[in-house]
Amino acid sequence: MTTLLESYVAGHWFRAQTEGEPLLDAATGEEVSRISASGLDYAQMVRWAREEGGPAVRALTFHQRAKLLKTLALHLGEHKPELYDLSVHTGATTKDTWVDVDGGIGTLFSYAGKGVRELPNDTIAFDGHLEQLGKAGTFVGQHIYTSRPGVAVQINAFNFPVWGMLEKLAPAFLAGLPSIVKPAGQTAYLTERAARIIIESGILPSGSLQLVAGSAGSLLDQLGVHDSVAFTGSAHTAGILRRHPNVLDGGVHLGVEADSLNCSILGPDVSTDDPEFDLFVKGVVTEMTVKAGQKCTAIRRVIVPEPMTDEVAAAIGARLAKITVGDPRDPEVRMGALASLGQREEVRKAVEALRSEADLVFGDPGRSFGRGAFLEPLLLRARPDAVQPHETEPFGPVSTVLSYRTMDDALALAARGKGSLAGSVITHDPAVARHLVLGLAPWHGRILVLDRDSAKESTGHGSPLPTLVHGGPGRAGGGEELGGIRGVLGHMQRTAVQSSPGLLTAVTGRWTTGSQRNTPAEHAFRLSLAELKVGDTISTGSRTVTLDDIEHFAEFTGDRFYAHTDAAAAEKNPLFAGIVAHGYLVVSLAAGLFVDPAPGPVLANFGVDGLRFLTPVKVDDAISVQLTVKQITPRNSADYGEVRWDALVSNQDGDAVATYDVLTLVAKAREE
Amino acid sequence: MTTLLESYVAGHWFRAQTEGEPLLDAATGEEVSRISASGLDYAQMVRWAREEGGPAVRALTFHQRAKLLKTLALHLGEHKPELYDLSVHTGATTKDTWVDVDGGIGTLFSYAGKGVRELPNDTIAFDGHLEQLGKAGTFVGQHIYTSRPGVAVQINAFNFPVWGMLEKLAPAFLAGLPSIVKPAGQTAYLTERAARIIIESGILPSGSLQLVAGSAGSLLDQLGVHDSVAFTGSAHTAGILRRHPNVLDGGVHLGVEADSLNCSILGPDVSTDDPEFDLFVKGVVTEMTVKAGQKCTAIRRVIVPEPMTDEVAAAIGARLAKITVGDPRDPEVRMGALASLGQREEVRKAVEALRSEADLVFGDPGRSFGRGAFLEPLLLRARPDAVQPHETEPFGPVSTVLSYRTMDDALALAARGKGSLAGSVITHDPAVARHLVLGLAPWHGRILVLDRDSAKESTGHGSPLPTLVHGGPGRAGGGEELGGIRGVLGHMQRTAVQSSPGLLTAVTGRWTTGSQRNTPAEHAFRLSLAELKVGDTISTGSRTVTLDDIEHFAEFTGDRFYAHTDAAAAEKNPLFAGIVAHGYLVVSLAAGLFVDPAPGPVLANFGVDGLRFLTPVKVDDAISVQLTVKQITPRNSADYGEVRWDALVSNQDGDAVATYDVLTLVAKAREE
Repeated sequence: MTTLLESYVAGHWFRAQTEGEPLLDAATGEEVSRISASGLDYAQMVRWAREEGGPAVRALTFHQRAKLLKTLALHLGEHKPELYDLSVHTGATTKDTWVDVDGGIGTLFSYAGKGVRELPNDTIAFDGHLEQLGKAGTFVGQHIYTSRPGVAVQINAFNFPVWGMLEKLAPAFLAGLPSIVKPAGQTAYLTERAARIIIESGILPSGSLQLVAGSAGSLLDQLGVHDSVAFTGSAHTAGILRRHPNVLDGGVHLGVEADSLNCSILGPDVSTDDPEFDLFVKGVVTEMTVKAGQKCTAIRRVIVPEPMTDEVAAAIGARLAKITVGDPRDPEVRMGALASLGQREEVRKAVEALRSEADLVFGDPGRSFGRGAFLEPLLLRARPDAVQPHETEPFGPVSTVLSYRTMDDALALAARGKGSLAGSVITHDPAVARHLVLGLAPWHGRILVLDRDSAKESTGHGSPLPTLVHGGPGRAGGGEELGGIRGVLGHMQRTAVQSSPGLLTAVTGRWTTGSQRNTPAEHAFRLSLAELKVGDTISTGSRTVTLDDIEHFAEFTGDRFYAHTDAAAAEKNPLFAGIVAHGYLVVSLAAGLFVDPAPGPVLANFGVDGLRFLTPVKVDDAISVQLTVKQITPRNSADYGEVRWDALVSNQDGDAVATYDVLTLVAKAREE
Repeated sequence: MTTLLESYVAGHWFRAQTEGEPLLDAATGEEVSRISASGLDYAQMVRWAREEGGPAVRALTFHQRAKLLKTLALHLGEHKPELYDLSVHTGATTKDTWVDVDGGIGTLFSYAGKGVRELPNDTIAFDGHLEQLGKAGTFVGQHIYTSRPGVAVQINAFNFPVWGMLEKLAPAFLAGLPSIVKPAGQTAYLTERAARIIIESGILPSGSLQLVAGSAGSLLDQLGVHDSVAFTGSAHTAGILRRHPNVLDGGVHLGVEADSLNCSILGPDVSTDDPEFDLFVKGVVTEMTVKAGQKCTAIRRVIVPEPMTDEVAAAIGARLAKITVGDPRDPEVRMGALASLGQREEVRKAVEALRSEADLVFGDPGRSFGRGAFLEPLLLRARPDAVQPHETEPFGPVSTVLSYRTMDDALALAARGKGSLAGSVITHDPAVARHLVLGLAPWHGRILVLDRDSAKESTGHGSPLPTLVHGGPGRAGGGEELGGIRGVLGHMQRTAVQSSPGLLTAVTGRWTTGSQRNTPAEHAFRLSLAELKVGDTISTGSRTVTLDDIEHFAEFTGDRFYAHTDAAAAEKNPLFAGIVAHGYLVVSLAAGLFVDPAPGPVLANFGVDGLRFLTPVKVDDAISVQLTVKQITPRNSADYGEVRWDALVSNQDGDAVATYDVLTLVAKAREE
């Protein structure tokens, strides 16, 4: 007997006091390990996540969490070989394993990068812009995101034991949530190993990751308002979860990624001579055979122009014929086994259902190879008005070809899937792309448009990317995962805060227009990042903008736009009615007013955001600037950080001439 | 017998063939009208919305929809008197009616404005920035929002018969959805009148608004993947809706705004002498008495520092004593009736439950006045460790005072509400504001911070605003409404589109970096808005930036920052290592390169977005610009529109020096 997988609960590894169920190698049928969570204290688990893990994660800023994810990605990268070794038992080929293991690690890297680049070095995030709620500016609103004081339960499918864990863990961790991971039984030995590597590394704070190797038991009974369950699996199980009282009435957030009858549409513009034809055929075969078609994003419905149907079916068949199926340990093998014999039985049943309305054009569903869960790739061709291809998801190397007459036919067929994770359109025609993509979009979480121009870099129909949303409406479950920072914010609570500007600044730590401005004893360009405070302000003297200035600037830069140079023509401009200064002259002179020239902590101006010219500067107007520290973002990995300044340029009447944010890099300390 | 309210179904008014149930005046007990939807064809209703209303609304751009909302708001504004007259029957005082009627119309205006300012003049919306999915730039991703081809069913509460309809209708309509409105029975005569005014005006496209005056019957049985139900009402009914098979397994989107035990916290810094003390007391009394406390956002829990409890209770009681309760037709009356005698019975029961753990300190729940559903405002004071105040929502003029010792105590009490729509913190201390708001935020959809600075403009604890999210986690239902454009996008499907830049441009109608650039026969500044096309490009010659230029610019503008003027110091700058041109000089010279000076359709540059300096410009570098039309937004209400140009400044080596968007106003037609 092999060893029993352990769960990780409240800081220790837990082994059930039973024999457990055997988990078999998908290709050889030999036992890999055993599984049981019998006797596991789920309440203790949730309590520990709440009391130990949650506070520890939330004590870190987004940037600190991101840094830990990067460290973790590097650490897992060093342990790839042992994960690869275990992955073979799942029936995965080397390529399949890369998708799972390297794909999972890549997701950590992606979130590590996004966390630093797109979130503040703080524990709260901002949503949208400031709302003026009163005319005098004393009452304003800002939406913020804060971490829920809850637990993220993650119930994963068997097909991606490593990626499945990491793609849910990374955004939840960045959001400040401790995770409880419950992998599917069949391949839990691989998830357990990855979780063990993570936990034993000590990289993540104590309590931020626990593991259920076995049944979820009473886990959901422990959850409440701020907890979430992210589920990937069958619509049937999703339905059970949706019916749990804590989901129905207890405020538990449930995200579902379930069945999906994804389609790929060949554009009507594509002929067999076009490179898009081969891209289409290749894409279908890839999706049928990678992970032996056990991907929730795989192409189940191949939708092609009626006159092309024979050629497409033949081309796919020809390519499938070259796929060697067998034990993934054999280097000649291109497609491995299904995850289990039970899984193969399910797929065969689904194919049987499909065959009531579709004809098999490639492969033999009955063929067996040794003890493993092997199945040949199977291509079907739907008979007219077939219903089954839109209802039955064979979770294996199976696709059905359907024919369309018009593009709207194709869209109607696609819509019969009732909502999918991923769709694709293969076309080189811009009008076809627009019509099909906009028609498909309401039914899809992600759409790939593939043509000769993107083929080389395309990641393909079936690959969720960390930067793009993964999830789909309707039958696909209605959930959303990944999508870069969207996946993080989806784990947080959005709250509208209404307040005076001063108290909003205090609450958010970001300077709000209308708040007090502080004048430091020194020019703020002389202060280091450590010394600068939100609200520190440079209030400049004024500079009169003369006609000479404007004419000179026009000559010097070459920007002789008539509104700056030709009084008669400028007079007729409906917005200016006379000579005005260049906007670029205004911001250039503003910098001349606020910059302190000597070397100091301010290293560079690396950008400007949201510049708006509000009042034209006329000849002999005098402008002055208030430059106020709005947000300070130390970089964890550099000896400087970013300072965002609020710039307000006013004229002699106090009218706002221009507003913008100036982005600078500022050294953390003054030069000794 | 009064008349039976009619439903509006598939283009005609439907009257049930029954007597219907009587609806009584809240104050006088007299019959106002009768209600029944018996015999209504719900399937026909949904079909008509799908086939007639949906396509008609989605044929309009966001700006066109916004314009209709504005027209509608103006039209309803002209019909206020008849709405006011009917509103009196609901028990509403004149002030209560303003909140409902004027508040509803204000919401239409707000969405009309936001729709034009914050959405494109198109049918799809963008979410986030472009994602580079490959290093060579041939494969990119962009999230877009498209309209669901579905129906928005809106089930409203009795307390805001007009606002309740309009605050759901406006964002749904902007999102491209037809609405089916089902008001609560008690006050449906007012919603029916408002709906009739809208429908008979013919302002909205046919099919975009239908009305169920009576039971929702089999309405939910008709709904599927792309349909949504927005519900405001009791947690009990919400639970029934959540259990509907079409919600559980059919992909219907359900948004709930239900029970909420909102709290208001008096900061520990506030003494009876502070203006915040009066603001707090006044706020509590307002929330208790406006709409006779029948507001889902009303303050149910008054959380105060223990030593202040007596004074707060006394002050609230003193203020409540001045509130005249009675028939809202009487101008002396400050608080009207509850919506019905049944409603009063519910409130009395809830007060009975509260009194098991709280003492009545103001008001007599048993006092009756005539035939109407009158109830005195009732203030209770919780005994230590009371549970009921956190569990029982008396939907009337009732609040309970609770004491706290530390701020974390106060937060723990607040959290016992298990999720609320609106909370408030009354403090003038920045540290108190930060601690309490960030602690409350995960439990709230909206938080008001009130102090002397914002008091004059504050809209108060209980007022949802169209620009801010309305909804809360947990017990409050977990839904989100309003929040400006958030409420629109929440009705749409988000999809990640992956593609070559060229096809992405075709799909979205917005130019994507990496797409083809077209060189028009004339300089693009000579083309009118009607003539310009996305992708039209100005490719300039180059200009060498000399040391003289840099020195001259420094002198001219006064920006003598050492990196531009002092070779030795610049050498030591870790980012530049030598003299560099000012960023503002670069963009000024860039304008000099791309501007065409003569009068023409380009009227003004009104702003710059997302300017980033990517490669420093060194002495004698030669820069050139590509300025490409990225997005064209005609304004419906002006003879010009906005053109967003993609600016790419490069050096002689082809490195990107700066990227930004230039925002211009361009005339729709050339001058004759």
